[in-house]
This record gives sequence, C-alpha cells and structure tokens, in this order.
Amino acid sequence: MSLLSKGNGNGKLDMLPEDFDPPAVVAAEPLPAAVESNGIGAGRKEGEMVLGRNVHTTCLSVTEPDEDDESTGDKDAYMAGVLARYRKTLVERTKHHLGYPYNLDFDFGALAQLQHFSINNLGDPFIESNYGVHSRQFEVGVLDWFARLWEIEKHEYWGYITNCGTEGNLHGILVGREVFPDGILYASRESHYSVFKAARMYRMECVKVATLVTGEIDCADFKSKLIPNKDKPAIINVNIGTTVKGAVDDLDLVIQTLEECGYSHDQFYIHCDGALFGLMMPFVKRAPKVSFKKPIGSVSVSGHKFVGCPMPCGVQITRMEHVNVLSSNVEYLASRDATIMGSRNGHAPIFLWHTLNRKGYKGFQKEVQKCLRNAHYLKDRLREAGISAMLNELSSTVVFERPRDVEFVRQWQLACEGNMAHVIVMPNVTIEKLDDFLNELVEKRSTWYPNEKVLPPCLAADIGRDNCVCALH
Amino acid sequence: MSLLSKGNGNGKLDMLPEDFDPPAVVAAEPLPAAVESNGIGAGRKEGEMVLGRNVHTTCLSVTEPDEDDESTGDKDAYMAGVLARYRKTLVERTKHHLGYPYNLDFDFGALAQLQHFSINNLGDPFIESNYGVHSRQFEVGVLDWFARLWEIEKHEYWGYITNCGTEGNLHGILVGREVFPDGILYASRESHYSVFKAARMYRMECVKVATLVTGEIDCADFKSKLIPNKDKPAIINVNIGTTVKGAVDDLDLVIQTLEECGYSHDQFYIHCDGALFGLMMPFVKRAPKVSFKKPIGSVSVSGHKFVGCPMPCGVQITRMEHVNVLSSNVEYLASRDATIMGSRNGHAPIFLWHTLNRKGYKGFQKEVQKCLRNAHYLKDRLREAGISAMLNELSSTVVFERPRDVEFVRQWQLACEGNMAHVIVMPNVTIEKLDDFLNELVEKRSTWYPNEKVLPPCLAADIGRDNCVCALH
Repeated sequence: MSLLSKGNGNGKLDMLPEDFDPPAVVAAEPLPAAVESNGIGAGRKEGEMVLGRNVHTTCLSVTEPDEDDESTGDKDAYMAGVLARYRKTLVERTKHHLGYPYNLDFDFGALAQLQHFSINNLGDPFIESNYGVHSRQFEVGVLDWFARLWEIEKHEYWGYITNCGTEGNLHGILVGREVFPDGILYASRESHYSVFKAARMYRMECVKVATLVTGEIDCADFKSKLIPNKDKPAIINVNIGTTVKGAVDDLDLVIQTLEECGYSHDQFYIHCDGALFGLMMPFVKRAPKVSFKKPIGSVSVSGHKFVGCPMPCGVQITRMEHVNVLSSNVEYLASRDATIMGSRNGHAPIFLWHTLNRKGYKGFQKEVQKCLRNAHYLKDRLREAGISAMLNELSSTVVFERPRDVEFVRQWQLACEGNMAHVIVMPNVTIEKLDDFLNELVEKRSTWYPNEKVLPPCLAADIGRDNCVCALH
Repeated sequence: MSLLSKGNGNGKLDMLPEDFDPPAVVAAEPLPAAVESNGIGAGRKEGEMVLGRNVHTTCLSVTEPDEDDESTGDKDAYMAGVLARYRKTLVERTKHHLGYPYNLDFDFGALAQLQHFSINNLGDPFIESNYGVHSRQFEVGVLDWFARLWEIEKHEYWGYITNCGTEGNLHGILVGREVFPDGILYASRESHYSVFKAARMYRMECVKVATLVTGEIDCADFKSKLIPNKDKPAIINVNIGTTVKGAVDDLDLVIQTLEECGYSHDQFYIHCDGALFGLMMPFVKRAPKVSFKKPIGSVSVSGHKFVGCPMPCGVQITRMEHVNVLSSNVEYLASRDATIMGSRNGHAPIFLWHTLNRKGYKGFQKEVQKCLRNAHYLKDRLREAGISAMLNELSSTVVFERPRDVEFVRQWQLACEGNMAHVIVMPNVTIEKLDDFLNELVEKRSTWYPNEKVLPPCLAADIGRDNCVCALH
C-alpha cells in the first residue's frame, strides 16, 4: 500500500561498501499514501475513550507543502492565518477561566529571545552534562529558593524541575518505594489520580483512606487502616491542597497518628503533594507547616499554578540520602540519572527564576492575601444568592453547586465532579471577573430553576449540611 | 529558626469564623531565614552524586527584591544583564555542538506570540478538557501525520505528544506490561538507559541481550534468551537508532526470531524506540521499515531531535486496543487518562505542527540526504587522518576514538563512552563546521600523541577490527 521502500527484507544490515553514494539510499518517493479511514474518527466508540468532543473532527491537519509554496508564500499565509485565529481563541479562553489553578497573569516579554534555543537540562541538575545548551544555573537557583522555603540545607537536599505536578508525585512515591520496597502506599480518596496511577505503575499495595467532609484525610480511618498492616512500612501521600476541594491534610496529625500506631521515624516515608497550595501555605498563618525539619521524605509543587508559567512544570525536593538509594544500582540503571525523565525542558527553570526574582517572598505574600480575600468574597456572594458553597480555611478553592448548563460550565472552564463545581481564585482572578461570573450565574440559574418543580441539588453529602442551602437544609 | 508561623500545632483546622478577615491569616514576616550551609555544596561528596562540576557553585541565586526596586529599576537591570550574558553563552554553545542529536536549526519567530499563554493539554489528546487554553487541534494534527508515516489508521491508533523520548519508552513498556502482566522485558544492552529504568520502576523481569559490534541486537543471543522463558510472554524493546552507535535493530529479524521460537503474535509486544532515527528511517532505502502493518505495539520518537524544537518533546503512537487495556480500570485510576503525565506542554505540539507543515515529507527527505552525506564525509576524513571511526549504514552517528583532552570534548559537546566519542550529524551540522572540528582535532591530536610512547586507544572491541586503525590493527 505504501510507496515507501520496504527494506531489503533479509534482515541483514551490511556495512556500506566503499563506493557507497549516500543519496542513493534515500527513497525517491518518500510520501506515504494516505491511510484510509471510514469517516473521521468513526472507529472511536462513543463513551469508550472519547468522553468529550472528538478532537479528530476539529483538528488542524498537517498538509504537504506544494512545489511552488516557497515562491507564492501561500502556505506561509495559510499558517499565519491559522495562528492568528488561534491566538484570538487563546485570548478569549484565557479571559474566561476560573476552574483550573493556573495563574495566567504573567509577562515574560524579556524571555522571548530564548525561544530560539533548544535548552535541555538532561539528567541530574547538579551534574553538568556535556550538552552545553542548558539552564542548570537557573534551575539550581530555583531549587535553592524552595529548599530554603521548606527548610532543608543545600547539601542535604536533592531535587529537580519537573514537567508537572504528576511527575513530582511519581518521583516522590518512587523514592518512597525504593526506600521501603515492601511499603504500603496510603492516600486519602480525594488525592490526585496520579497517586493511584503511581501505585499501579509501581506495583505497590495501595490503601485508600476516607476523608472528612472538608476533603482532608480522616486520621481516625487512617489509624484503623494502619493497625492491621503494622508489619509493613508505610508510604503516605499527604495532600497540601486536594484537587477538588482544596483541602489541606493535617501533616502534624498524620505524623502523630503514625507515632501513636507505633511507627518509628525509620518505618514511614511521607510525600507531600503540594501541587497548588505548597506555595501558598507558607504565607498563611495557622497552616500546618511543610518543613523538612519534620519527618517527611519529599515535597512537590507545580510551577505553572501559583507562580504561573507558559508551560506546565513543577519543583520536586527530596532528601539527598534517599536519592542515593534510588541511584545506587548504577550498573542496572546504566546511569546516575535519578529523575523520571531524561531530557528536561530548560526553559521552565528560567521562567520560574524570573518570577521568583521579581516577586520574592513578599510578592507572593501579597498575592496570597489577594486570593484569599477574593475567594471569601466569592463564597459570601454565592451564599447570599442562596447557592450552596464551601471554602476551606487554608484554601482559595470555592466549591459550589454544579451549574446545570454544560455551555455555562464550558464558557467559564469550571472543573466539576458529581454535584460540585469549583472556582480556584488565582492572582489573575479579579473582583470584576468574579462579579461578571456571579451575575451571569445568578441570571442563568433563575432560568434553570424557574419554579419548585426542579430543585437545585443537595450538597450536604459533598460539602456538609452547614454549607448546603438546598430546599432540605 | 524560621520566622514563618508554625501553625496552630493541635492539628485541628476549624472552618473560618464569620468575622474572619483574610489578610490576618497571612504571616507578617513571610521571609524564611537562610538555611545555614557549611560552605556551598560542601556536603556533596565527590564521586557520590556530583560527577561533573557542582552547579551549586555557579548557580544564579534568586534574591529577594528590595523595597525600592520598583522605583529604581535596579533589579530589572540586573536581571536583563544576567539574561543578556546567558543569551551570549547560548549562542556560543549552540554554535559548537556536535555530540547530541538535536537539530538546532529552527526559526519559530512566528510562534513567539504564544509565549504569553499558559497552554496545557492536560490528559488525553482526544478528550477535550474543560480547560480551554489548550492546543489539542494541533496535537491531533501532528499525531495523524505520524500515524500515516507508520501506517496505522486514524481510528485504530492512540497517542500523545510526550515530554521526551524517555516518556515514550516509559509509556510503551508500560502498555506492554499491562497487556502482558507477567511478560519478560528483553532489550539489547545498548538500549537507552530509560528502558532499564522502566524495568526497575515497573518491577518487571528484564533480560539484557548481547549486541553485534555495530550496536544492533544480536538475534542469536536473543533466541538463546527466549527459549528458556517460553512459558512467559515477551515484551521487546527494539532500537531504531541506539544512543551511542546509532545502530538500528533489525525489526524483521526480531519478529522472525520470535516466530522461530514458537511465539504467536498474541504472545509478544514490541515497542520501537525510534528516538532519533524513527523520523529518518522512512526516508532511507533498505531500512527495515517501522510499520503497524507488522506485529508491533508502539513506536516513539523524539520531537526535539530530527524535527527540532526549543524544548524536549516526543511522539508516542500505540494501538487503540492496547490503550483500552491500560485505561480499563477506571475506578482504580480515577481517570481515563492513559498518558504518563497529567498536565502536558501545549506549546510543543504547535512547534511540531509548524515544522511538519513547512517541511513536509519532502523537506525531511532532503535533510536526511544531507545528514547522511555529511556523516560519510566526516567518517572518511577521520579515517584519512588515521583515526579509528565507524558509521553504521542507516545512521548519521559517527563513532570515533575518544579525544584525550576533556576541554576539547567539552568545547565540542561530544558524548563519550569508554574509548568512544561520537558526532551526530544533524541538519544544522554543515561541512564547514565539520571541517573546523576536524582541523582542530587533527592539530590537537598531534600534541596528545607526539611520539610512540603514548598511543591512541585500540577500538577494535568497540567498533570492530575493520574500523580500528590503532597501532595493532
């Protein structure tokens, strides 16, 4: 079917003869024939893999350039047009965005010049590779900043800038398993799904722990799960801000529970998943402090969330002693690379470095204040409008009654689960934006529930009776 | 020690009182005290984690902005200075670069406008998320292009754009393990280290297979390893271009060996690691063709290598039927996300889309021709100069005698292993650059080996007697 050459077929790859002429090895007609399809995406069964829209129907196909494209410039014009339209969509979609914890308020104009370079921090941040186009000097500067925030000395920590929060969790849990090969992973059922993905990937026994109505880990249930498994070490994922409710597990109570169950400090490993709040918590009084002065093994935080970055990234910090365990079996790994990925984006560290330098601890403090203030404003206004809503103490995630209209959800890019939706108040979410959102919600809602025949859902089971204002409560 | 508030300590997180004033929860002094260090990086033992230079000594610390920075602009000026110096280094380092398979010849000026957006294709490329600032329409366009190249129909494949070649290998091998939970992983000992990392991460039995002197998998040894394990399915990593020698495993012979050992097509899973050559091979006659018409399970290729991209990325394609196995256990995974990472860089797909559109199949054909021609030129000139060198038939990786001088290696950013170094001839490597390199090498080499007391190393064991021109051969 294809016009491509099929190879010699006998499986033998002789070395080249002396008179070998390189261009001759290139097929004359390299253009593969189009693979036939019985209608675009027709083979994907509804509800099987494709839960949302099928992107195949809206995708931007790559087309082969015509012979004369270079002279006419048609292709360039076409692509410029596509990009201009895409940019417009990005502007519009960035404006209407409330459901995801991404700070979209950044200006990296000064860094545009770096897009011309293939910057790759492959391998360990502390081991210079022979590949010279890297940004390790920025990466280590950023890591040192976080090490200071989480109170661990420079020579005692190891870490790297990851591709996202998931990679941080995958790394933290892997380190835990390497330290305790027969350890059991404990995680609250409201933990991010990457934690359970890790358990499956790593073939670890995993125990799900119940949560309180706030979304925090239920330490009474944790205790009851620990006791029958006391013969095995514990690896615990502690959430510093859950995905849906922004709940912060009480690190101190988790450690206390382990101690009460008879676990000594060398029988457990705690990974703190600080995806969003890992960077907000240090600026909130009364928050259980994340610190390596406590018996924790690793902390991860996302870089594209509170800090803001054009591409997803994260920071992972662990203890040097643990990483030595991970990279001990050099012969087997054939590398001292203790990261999950080999090649790593060298741009992200520069974006983070730039923002940390500009804002500093004080700048983040101000932004956290603003976010908490605005989150309270939103929760109060929702409740005033008779809408069930909850806001955890240490959080800027406002959980409320899921809007009935899918288009409204899509328009404001809300994340939903069951009867709940949430807005995460980030530094780019202003009072004006919240007002626009609230006004539209209240107006639309009056059409969703015009009379008492259709009632708004009860959220008592999700966010507690006190926060529910449905007809029953 | 820290000035940060310590939390309430009793582990209880009460809901906020009604008269709660958000700013009050923010600590007055959020600046953490500097963590003491006994000399920068002093704690890292030489040879333990730090094999190269200790980046701590050269890193760019993040500094807290002064109160008056905003008015004086001092900090902005400092940072602009740092970036300008960094840019100069990047220009210089990009110019002198031969050892890594990155195409540094690109111009994405048209895409600079996108750096203002936080583009994230979180989760499945084919399932639209509520987060609107994504680039799935570009991503699927790119995936379709590769699906066509590797001959699989649109509705039969699944794939995504990864963060790098390693993620592709981690994914391919994970899919293989999910299809065959008790399968044994076979990989030649010259496979990329991420393959062995995967085996350790996934707790898989892993059998290393010997290689021929070219670097290809030795199928006689493969057979001898398969026979005693016939009761278990086989998961095979096939290299389409090894890291060091650029050797291409003979896919057809691997399949034939499996068949000869009595494995039916539903008893093995082949992952093709096409890091670099996965995109060059289709344009080389006589190359064993990578195609989903053969019994293979997945193919991965890097995007920042032959295509060229400012950040590492890759393409992973597998069969839809396999991914359904991976994402079947939804309750456990709490997600239908079959990617390794959750959040994914949305810029990389646009860079790839842009280049594929501009170059097309024909553009890649021309570049492959040029690379092979230039690689032959380099190998021939090395041999003329009396330097041991090897070039595999389907490769642009020239392996040669490792230069004695570490500074020379660093200057040209050569990758080295044992007595070998290599140059990978990419589209941005011109004859002029190769001449500069060769002239400097020949000149320096005459000082490394001024007389017969110190002889260049013998490379017969590494690249074969025929390619070795040491004093013995």
